[in-house]
Amino acid sequence: MPTKAQDFNEWYNDVVERAALTDKRYPVKGMNVWTGYGWSVMARIDGLMRREMARTGHEEVNFPLLIPETEFRKEAEHIRGFEEEVYWVTRAGKNELDIPMCLRPTSETAMYPIFALWIRSHADLPLKTFQIVSTFRYDTKQTRAFLRVREIHFFEAHTAHVDAADAERQVREDMEVMESLGRELCVPYLLNRRPDWDKFPGAHYSLAADAWTPGLRTLQVATIHHYRDNFAKAYNVTYEAADGSRQFVHQTTYGMSERLLGAVVAIHGDDKGVALPPAVAPVQVVVVPIPEKGRQSAILDEARRLAGELEAHVRVKLDDRDVRPGAKFYEWEAKGVPLRLELGPRDLADGVVTAARRDASDRTTIPRGDVVPQVRDLLLRIQKDMYARAERDMRAHIVDIATPEEAREAINRFGWCGDPECGHRLEQDTGMSILGTPFEPERFDGPCIVCGKPATSAAYLARTY
Amino acid sequence: MPTKAQDFNEWYNDVVERAALTDKRYPVKGMNVWTGYGWSVMARIDGLMRREMARTGHEEVNFPLLIPETEFRKEAEHIRGFEEEVYWVTRAGKNELDIPMCLRPTSETAMYPIFALWIRSHADLPLKTFQIVSTFRYDTKQTRAFLRVREIHFFEAHTAHVDAADAERQVREDMEVMESLGRELCVPYLLNRRPDWDKFPGAHYSLAADAWTPGLRTLQVATIHHYRDNFAKAYNVTYEAADGSRQFVHQTTYGMSERLLGAVVAIHGDDKGVALPPAVAPVQVVVVPIPEKGRQSAILDEARRLAGELEAHVRVKLDDRDVRPGAKFYEWEAKGVPLRLELGPRDLADGVVTAARRDASDRTTIPRGDVVPQVRDLLLRIQKDMYARAERDMRAHIVDIATPEEAREAINRFGWCGDPECGHRLEQDTGMSILGTPFEPERFDGPCIVCGKPATSAAYLARTY
Repeated sequence: MPTKAQDFNEWYNDVVERAALTDKRYPVKGMNVWTGYGWSVMARIDGLMRREMARTGHEEVNFPLLIPETEFRKEAEHIRGFEEEVYWVTRAGKNELDIPMCLRPTSETAMYPIFALWIRSHADLPLKTFQIVSTFRYDTKQTRAFLRVREIHFFEAHTAHVDAADAERQVREDMEVMESLGRELCVPYLLNRRPDWDKFPGAHYSLAADAWTPGLRTLQVATIHHYRDNFAKAYNVTYEAADGSRQFVHQTTYGMSERLLGAVVAIHGDDKGVALPPAVAPVQVVVVPIPEKGRQSAILDEARRLAGELEAHVRVKLDDRDVRPGAKFYEWEAKGVPLRLELGPRDLADGVVTAARRDASDRTTIPRGDVVPQVRDLLLRIQKDMYARAERDMRAHIVDIATPEEAREAINRFGWCGDPECGHRLEQDTGMSILGTPFEPERFDGPCIVCGKPATSAAYLARTY
Repeated sequence: MPTKAQDFNEWYNDVVERAALTDKRYPVKGMNVWTGYGWSVMARIDGLMRREMARTGHEEVNFPLLIPETEFRKEAEHIRGFEEEVYWVTRAGKNELDIPMCLRPTSETAMYPIFALWIRSHADLPLKTFQIVSTFRYDTKQTRAFLRVREIHFFEAHTAHVDAADAERQVREDMEVMESLGRELCVPYLLNRRPDWDKFPGAHYSLAADAWTPGLRTLQVATIHHYRDNFAKAYNVTYEAADGSRQFVHQTTYGMSERLLGAVVAIHGDDKGVALPPAVAPVQVVVVPIPEKGRQSAILDEARRLAGELEAHVRVKLDDRDVRPGAKFYEWEAKGVPLRLELGPRDLADGVVTAARRDASDRTTIPRGDVVPQVRDLLLRIQKDMYARAERDMRAHIVDIATPEEAREAINRFGWCGDPECGHRLEQDTGMSILGTPFEPERFDGPCIVCGKPATSAAYLARTY
């Protein structure tokens, strides 16, 4: 098998399979099977999202999958953006449907006709909802597990507000939520305001969280859109203001998907397999007894006690299968368990256990009586170190360029006058994509690298997934 | 609005709406919106299923929604059973698909080609999986929230075993799980073995849990199917036995859906609204302060303390909105909160709170210092009483009949020779359905009520949803 350094793409495909995170043998391209292990990781990521949504006062809802063509076509830009990639249900039983229905590629057009019924007065606002559902996009690019699939495990928050300013506050709240998720998943990112030609169809503006992957491309892991009243006008979502007048709501959305899991795999995996951050690892600690002839039962008993003590504090698994320890190490490393505790005859004699971190190669011994606090401490350190390492790597790949020719497989930072013409020319000449301008403005002294006029902002250019 | 006794169907429609459990205004028939409240109840029901699945060693998986027609057609009986009611995706973007794909009506044909890859030897068995997903059935009967919908919130467990006997053990385990869910949801049921002509397409036999509803019909709330090796042969799901031979697996499934929520509404609701069992109520206790001029803040403070004390023990909500107490009572009763605690000036002076059970009309006072244990105790009693009341009602509606003419709007118990001819004639003459024979055999002394030959078993006949 190729190493991560030799061939990132091949390595990625191999590693998700070895970890048994997904099964790609389902007979429809881009539609993969969530195995028990993969689903348990994704469910933990969903759990973090649900916790954040509860904290910020969003309600979980669940809208139908099928959207009648008539509803779908109401927002013109939106439909133009999606018409190449929606799946259509045209038949039910033996009947042709009068009105075809598409599988949701995203849920604006399913939700907003209902929002129009739910929202009556300013007292109903802000309306803050989210759902976690499958969405469907007939993407013609090469598919890749978690990163580019046709059935997408999707998170979408939809909110409605009295005005653009309140919607803007929502965007800021979403950014905070994203910050906290990025830390827990150990996925650092740059927050960019997408150029106008690349914003979400129907949006006033789009922000995207772009992570850096060792595949030398950026990966969009989340988007936050401010719609202003674009959709409200198409779906007639209005409220009665305090002064009795009828006003359109202003809306936002916040989208994430299984790509977050793909980012974790891409960023933290190595030639041994996947490495999961403790915050989302279904098994945080695996206890592996190393038996010795004649002392098997003493070692096994102690391993059981050890796992039992840890159970109340961390997600621990005792691997007492009748399999060589080396094979167990290999398997749990491939699956990305953050911490392994070994217990052999020498450990038993010395009153210690041996701890091996998945994210580093150092092994330490922990006094047996001190296991619970030290394991908890180690998990916290692993969590921090994984984030810090990824962030260092991302920062190291941000390079300032002064001409289009200098652009390389990195996050190229350049001066831009803001003219779309220059943007398009740069994308064409480099074969890369402009990620946009940093949401928190970054000054850039110097000329636009395309036309030479003064730059109005720094901008980013990279190859993307 | 009609009362439950006057017009059950109208009452049902009204009550799910008043409780805001669902929004039926989505523009596709039989596809409703899960509101925040409805979803939070369903999520609790799903949570009970997940707990039971974890306890019994099932792994949660998630298979793709779309099934290629070629896979779907492999089990002949199965496809005949579903071909009138599947939705077909025939177009993606602007392309006609070479092979149409159906939206899963259930997942046998999606899963079993993959099971064939997962299962190699007897060591991989039993394989115990489940998923909670939307399924789709183009049902042409009248739709009704939770009871008959076209996008169904569905639970499906799929298992594979070395032989029919081990699959039979699985059926018994599923029955235990169902027993525990029935208790927690306060939905008693009869477990019937469906007549052969009504079993699941492709099954060796089908068991169904039939609940009794005040609509004077039975409602199928769960099914357990023993497939033997019918699907294994169609999808080539085999394993290497200990003796080296290649054997087909034997399979079972266990299905439940949002109908469980519909059953709770139908059985326990009344003219005030829905009544939820404490086990699945998102809010178990609502605290309503009854303010009095001049003492508002003292009462509100005490209500806050009260809710705060309960928080660690039960799911409590303090309703401190600036709304008349009567309006609050009305709303929380409609939503089915099991217990209301009122705190007014007299309560404050007497050092008590007033407790009103949703499932009964009695009000009691609880000494303020004893609130936590007494509230917990009350919730347990509500849970038990709701189940007992529903079971009494079901039992009261089981009637023995000696001739087809005696059949009435009840669960009619009758003697049957087992001949399908007699069964079909009885169904035709009464316009009712044979639920089948009780899974735990019940002797029935007397003749078959159709042909007069000796009955081989008791059987049940009822109108069904």
